[in-house]
Amino acid sequence: MASELPLSSRARRTTDSPISYFVQKAIETPGLISLAAGLVDESAFPSEEIASVVADMMADPKSAKAALQYGSTLGYAPLRQRVLDLVRASDGIRPGENAATVANVVLTTGSQQMLYILCELLLDPGDIVIAEAPSYFVFHDCLKSSGARVLTVPMDAGGMCLDSLENLLESLERTGELDRLKMIYTVDYFQNPTGITLAADRRPKLVELAKRFSKHHRILILEDAAYRELRYDGEDVPSVKRFDTTNEFVIYTSTFSKPCAPGLKTGYSIVPTDLIRPIGNLKGSHDFGSSNFCQHILDRLLESGAFQRHVEVLRGVYRRKRDAMVGALAEQFADWPEVSWTRADGGFYSWLTFPDRIETGQESELVRRSVREGVLFIPGELAHVPDARGTLPKNQIRLCFGVEEPAQIAEGIRRLRRACRGMESVARSE
Amino acid sequence: MASELPLSSRARRTTDSPISYFVQKAIETPGLISLAAGLVDESAFPSEEIASVVADMMADPKSAKAALQYGSTLGYAPLRQRVLDLVRASDGIRPGENAATVANVVLTTGSQQMLYILCELLLDPGDIVIAEAPSYFVFHDCLKSSGARVLTVPMDAGGMCLDSLENLLESLERTGELDRLKMIYTVDYFQNPTGITLAADRRPKLVELAKRFSKHHRILILEDAAYRELRYDGEDVPSVKRFDTTNEFVIYTSTFSKPCAPGLKTGYSIVPTDLIRPIGNLKGSHDFGSSNFCQHILDRLLESGAFQRHVEVLRGVYRRKRDAMVGALAEQFADWPEVSWTRADGGFYSWLTFPDRIETGQESELVRRSVREGVLFIPGELAHVPDARGTLPKNQIRLCFGVEEPAQIAEGIRRLRRACRGMESVARSE
Repeated sequence: MASELPLSSRARRTTDSPISYFVQKAIETPGLISLAAGLVDESAFPSEEIASVVADMMADPKSAKAALQYGSTLGYAPLRQRVLDLVRASDGIRPGENAATVANVVLTTGSQQMLYILCELLLDPGDIVIAEAPSYFVFHDCLKSSGARVLTVPMDAGGMCLDSLENLLESLERTGELDRLKMIYTVDYFQNPTGITLAADRRPKLVELAKRFSKHHRILILEDAAYRELRYDGEDVPSVKRFDTTNEFVIYTSTFSKPCAPGLKTGYSIVPTDLIRPIGNLKGSHDFGSSNFCQHILDRLLESGAFQRHVEVLRGVYRRKRDAMVGALAEQFADWPEVSWTRADGGFYSWLTFPDRIETGQESELVRRSVREGVLFIPGELAHVPDARGTLPKNQIRLCFGVEEPAQIAEGIRRLRRACRGMESVARSE
Repeated sequence: MASELPLSSRARRTTDSPISYFVQKAIETPGLISLAAGLVDESAFPSEEIASVVADMMADPKSAKAALQYGSTLGYAPLRQRVLDLVRASDGIRPGENAATVANVVLTTGSQQMLYILCELLLDPGDIVIAEAPSYFVFHDCLKSSGARVLTVPMDAGGMCLDSLENLLESLERTGELDRLKMIYTVDYFQNPTGITLAADRRPKLVELAKRFSKHHRILILEDAAYRELRYDGEDVPSVKRFDTTNEFVIYTSTFSKPCAPGLKTGYSIVPTDLIRPIGNLKGSHDFGSSNFCQHILDRLLESGAFQRHVEVLRGVYRRKRDAMVGALAEQFADWPEVSWTRADGGFYSWLTFPDRIETGQESELVRRSVREGVLFIPGELAHVPDARGTLPKNQIRLCFGVEEPAQIAEGIRRLRRACRGMESVARSE
């Protein structure tokens, strides 16, 4: 009898997420201030509204039955219409102006499920996906599991550098690899991990580039707008999807986890028409539909305006947290001008860059010292993939201000500063 | 610009489920009695209990936060413990007697998600899965999507014929294909579609066979116990998992969809220890955890005993439906002794076999006539895969008594009888 598990090649490519170490560490260490995991604020869930919506829904036998029965694979139609209206309103699209309809909307188990399903639908081992450097590390895990090659494009304060993207596309064309490129991935609002938003004028240009290089097949843009609603400063910018007027090139995906409650685990996407059927077929095999009950709750929260009011409250909550973080960073690192960080207009993250000589990886002196001081962050290298030369920036960290209270965030930054005290000058060891 | 979608090989293998036709037909045809889709009774949801549980949960800020925050990838630990206790109690396992612990329990988006994840984890294209003939057609879709070969074993009144299974295993060994066999799939309680339960004395034997033929690697048994709680006659039989005393060979999977509410979309599995990590990694990429909110609701329903009381109510509800169906079949088909059907001790299905000459497929005369009479069923061939000689039984149908009320079920069977009136003798045409 042989006892070895008969794992598939996909299973063998699918490995532990390096993030688990940091999640585990946070659980094991009492008193630790976690600026690591990208969880949401717990004091600001719409629990009363949810209780009231469920009471109403269960009190009427008709709506109780509808919510507790199986739903449909693509999701509850009224909610699909509401999220379409939501995105169209944000994008300033008038009725009849854009090709996407309710039939193009899919509800999933968080937006994560859509990221995974798209990898399955589009990628064979060896296929290419272009992502920002750095990018959302859980998506990197999906790509690894699919056996895809990830090529990256640098970012500046305006997000993905489109000149670099164009160069990369041209180079793929020259080397004959353009036929392996399936998808360009962008987290274009307050990116995880950098907090950076793709500049408004780059958005139509990105669609134009995908179109221009769709020579062998359509190159799809996956626009991950998970944080869009959580804007604390400035005006909303139109989605990349807004410029995909024929509804062919862009998959827009977002979620209710950040602006409402992750426990309801509901994401939504607007996808090109000819992708609906493949998605429906595959999601049919995954689960033939995410929780119908949660979708009915969200539908009512949107219908009553409770969702929209809640988003307003959250903006205030998180703005104070963001201010606490960037305020503390400015104060604590004023005496170390080599250190820089982003001030996000929304979302959950500040991205901090140390001088090159300061390593921030899991085994680094800085992580050891930080845990000793009682603060945790995510090493920046986990959000990077090695570039063409195999190198990886190792001097950055992601700081999340989503979870802790403002005073704790400020204390966390003080602890971080203490942890790197004495590392300011080159070649100093304890 | 090329507009073709760049689909992966998996996407190209994943096709429409033939069931969609019947679901669509039911929606389009008013007055139709549907004995087709395997949905659950709508009059018997525990809506009051759910409203009360949610009200309590949301009233306490601590429990509201816990339910509305992200959960963990493998599921809410207290609920994992409760489902383990549930299965151990059903199997008469005493503390310390079996190797599986709470760490071996995984919660998923319905049990369907576990079926899909296992296909991804175990199967490369060309790998072999053994299933009962007939079997659960949605699982066939997963297998097709994975590119697996499905080999089947006939059933009798005691379920999968283990002599045939043994012959098949020996033949795979002879042809050198045993190393491609990854999994044996059984729906062993009131099977979908036949209603048949695997006999008690075959259960330890099945584990023994999997062990004996695990020569190249471990051959896993996937025990789909989705209907186990819904027994209307006789005593519960121990699971196949019960005989996997080392917790190595059997994945036991079940769901709260049938005995509670499909809208909560929560399934559970007990899996071998070394499969937990691969499952966690892959589910992490899928969705990093199913709806935490739904898991917290179910935890409270189990804690208060509301779930257990609800199952008792359901047993009464569905027993009356089962009786209505088999009663009507006996009455309506008394004058046509060539027709036979199963009387399930639980679950949702009767499996009816016409004489060979009566075809029941989507394009058949019988389906056309039945729709005209106002009744719908699932053609049996959809639950079959062609055998080694490429043949497929075409004279069977699945009748579901889960959805309609007893009087409607009886009327549905009368309509079915009317639909085949005149087809009793050979070679008659209208």
